[in-house]
Amino acid sequence: MTEKVNRQVVLSERPRGPIEARHFNIVESTVPTPGPGQILVRSIFSSVAPPHRAWIQGVTYRDQVAVGEVIPGLAISEVISGPADGPARGTLVAAHSGWQEYGLADAAEAQPIPVGDHLARHLGVMGINGLTAYFGMLEVGQVKAGQTVVVSAAAGAVGHLAGQLARIAGARVIGITSSDEKNRLLTDKLGYDKAVNRRSDTFQQDLADAVGEGGADLFYDNTGGYVMEAVLPLMATHGRVVCCGGTAAYDGLEQMPVGPRGIPLLIILKRLHLVGFIVLDFLERFGEAYEKLAGWIDGGQLADLAEVRDGLDAAPQAMVDLLAGDSLGNLAFRIGPDPA
Amino acid sequence: MTEKVNRQVVLSERPRGPIEARHFNIVESTVPTPGPGQILVRSIFSSVAPPHRAWIQGVTYRDQVAVGEVIPGLAISEVISGPADGPARGTLVAAHSGWQEYGLADAAEAQPIPVGDHLARHLGVMGINGLTAYFGMLEVGQVKAGQTVVVSAAAGAVGHLAGQLARIAGARVIGITSSDEKNRLLTDKLGYDKAVNRRSDTFQQDLADAVGEGGADLFYDNTGGYVMEAVLPLMATHGRVVCCGGTAAYDGLEQMPVGPRGIPLLIILKRLHLVGFIVLDFLERFGEAYEKLAGWIDGGQLADLAEVRDGLDAAPQAMVDLLAGDSLGNLAFRIGPDPA
Repeated sequence: MTEKVNRQVVLSERPRGPIEARHFNIVESTVPTPGPGQILVRSIFSSVAPPHRAWIQGVTYRDQVAVGEVIPGLAISEVISGPADGPARGTLVAAHSGWQEYGLADAAEAQPIPVGDHLARHLGVMGINGLTAYFGMLEVGQVKAGQTVVVSAAAGAVGHLAGQLARIAGARVIGITSSDEKNRLLTDKLGYDKAVNRRSDTFQQDLADAVGEGGADLFYDNTGGYVMEAVLPLMATHGRVVCCGGTAAYDGLEQMPVGPRGIPLLIILKRLHLVGFIVLDFLERFGEAYEKLAGWIDGGQLADLAEVRDGLDAAPQAMVDLLAGDSLGNLAFRIGPDPA
Repeated sequence: MTEKVNRQVVLSERPRGPIEARHFNIVESTVPTPGPGQILVRSIFSSVAPPHRAWIQGVTYRDQVAVGEVIPGLAISEVISGPADGPARGTLVAAHSGWQEYGLADAAEAQPIPVGDHLARHLGVMGINGLTAYFGMLEVGQVKAGQTVVVSAAAGAVGHLAGQLARIAGARVIGITSSDEKNRLLTDKLGYDKAVNRRSDTFQQDLADAVGEGGADLFYDNTGGYVMEAVLPLMATHGRVVCCGGTAAYDGLEQMPVGPRGIPLLIILKRLHLVGFIVLDFLERFGEAYEKLAGWIDGGQLADLAEVRDGLDAAPQAMVDLLAGDSLGNLAFRIGPDPA
């Protein structure tokens, strides 16, 4: 349609260890032309999330990202053109158009979003992270008032919301993060009851002290690995573990690492339930979740942590920082200006 | 009450590696006198089971067995004396009187059993093993007709019953055992659809072939360890794992071994549900289970594998053989003669 250049973030090389910015390339392409049923969008924001690392490594619930392929991902975009029965030109949508300035997406799958001051929030608390925390904590986790709940990666994109939803449900909430600074944020600003630093020499003891004699009724796990291994022995009998993420295994490994010690013996002795889920399993109930999340945000009960970096070029380093634990809440990057 | 000698199997030394017969002693003691609410019993049969190994190693759902202590365990016995409101002299009971010729047990907890030709069966299919398989497969596992079910330690005391209960429920059943000989028994005599040998060089491929494209809907796991690790990648989406036992970790370890690779990632990607249970959680429903089990036995649908060794002195080696995978079904030993 034009001579406009389309800048894209592509995978330059599949990492064989921890991911680095050099594993990505910024390339220039032409703006594509939508096929039948497709829309062409101009991207405003996208974000980085741990699943990106898994998609780059291997086959998950989607195909592996190929070398040379644009990094996939949800973006907040403005519709440029598309089918007559699709969203109108100028509509703001959330669609899987990837890390690029202009992309194509299925018209039927693009979710219209309202014009507002917090567009990037539709990639966070009012997007897939909020939905994940909502269904993971309330439906899969079945959190109840009075329970003791532990959340790992508790200042992360999903974790900081999951912990707050547990607090809203009346639970006592303990967060695990990678720094004292994040912990202060959790307890001072987000209403966590306790927070422990997984990098501390006294992590295991700190965690045991925070959980207390009664044990943890619910563990909302975003990491797996040694953090999961530390929590399992502290679970209460008949406790529940929501397996939401495994960031400990996403980076730097070509083979899956061994699992936490005590599986299956602790599962048996404590009669634990471990349940895995993917938010897309709840697709038909997203509307209900959005309403509830918006209500809690408007009521001041649910705060979101987010960082927005500037430019498509910021994406590779953002991915690296995210996996190193050096980010807070949802980590988005701005690709283009808000609509005029 | 008498000058009779009471022969007992006691723990002589806590194993620091695989258990050996020398870790037990046979000692002579006097026949004890029951306290208030206790019965004195004369033992006829007891049995060895993987949990014995765990009790000897550390604290589980019961205290660790102390060096010098009689090995605890359920026995089929004849009541010698006890309180007036307890079971009458001569009654046959199943009670936790341990590995000894004469023992004490709580009168209230002793379960009267009918006189019959298959007394040792009350330690197997009509005892804790049958109950475990019943509640594990039907309640915790929620087995359904048409499902593909994998059972590990499938010729073991619980496994051979669990697999048959799945078959009775209309499932396709695949057993994992440690020998081709056991496998033939499963497929020829117990109605398993397939059986694979975990000691074969082609185990992983054999298992994948047996499970087939659709994956396993239900995994009834008695072992943990590398067998569990082999099954997890073959699970169907939304599959269920019943964590019943962890024999792979019972012997030879002072620290819990690492868990299977792929936990938690496979749990998430496949949306698995892992559930631990202990049969005592279902205590109030034992009556119902006994009725069903007896019906299936009488109807010829449920066969039991059992070996009965001769004498209390056979117990230490039986424990060793059990953990080495060299036994079939329930492994009992006769301590004394049937009632006159």
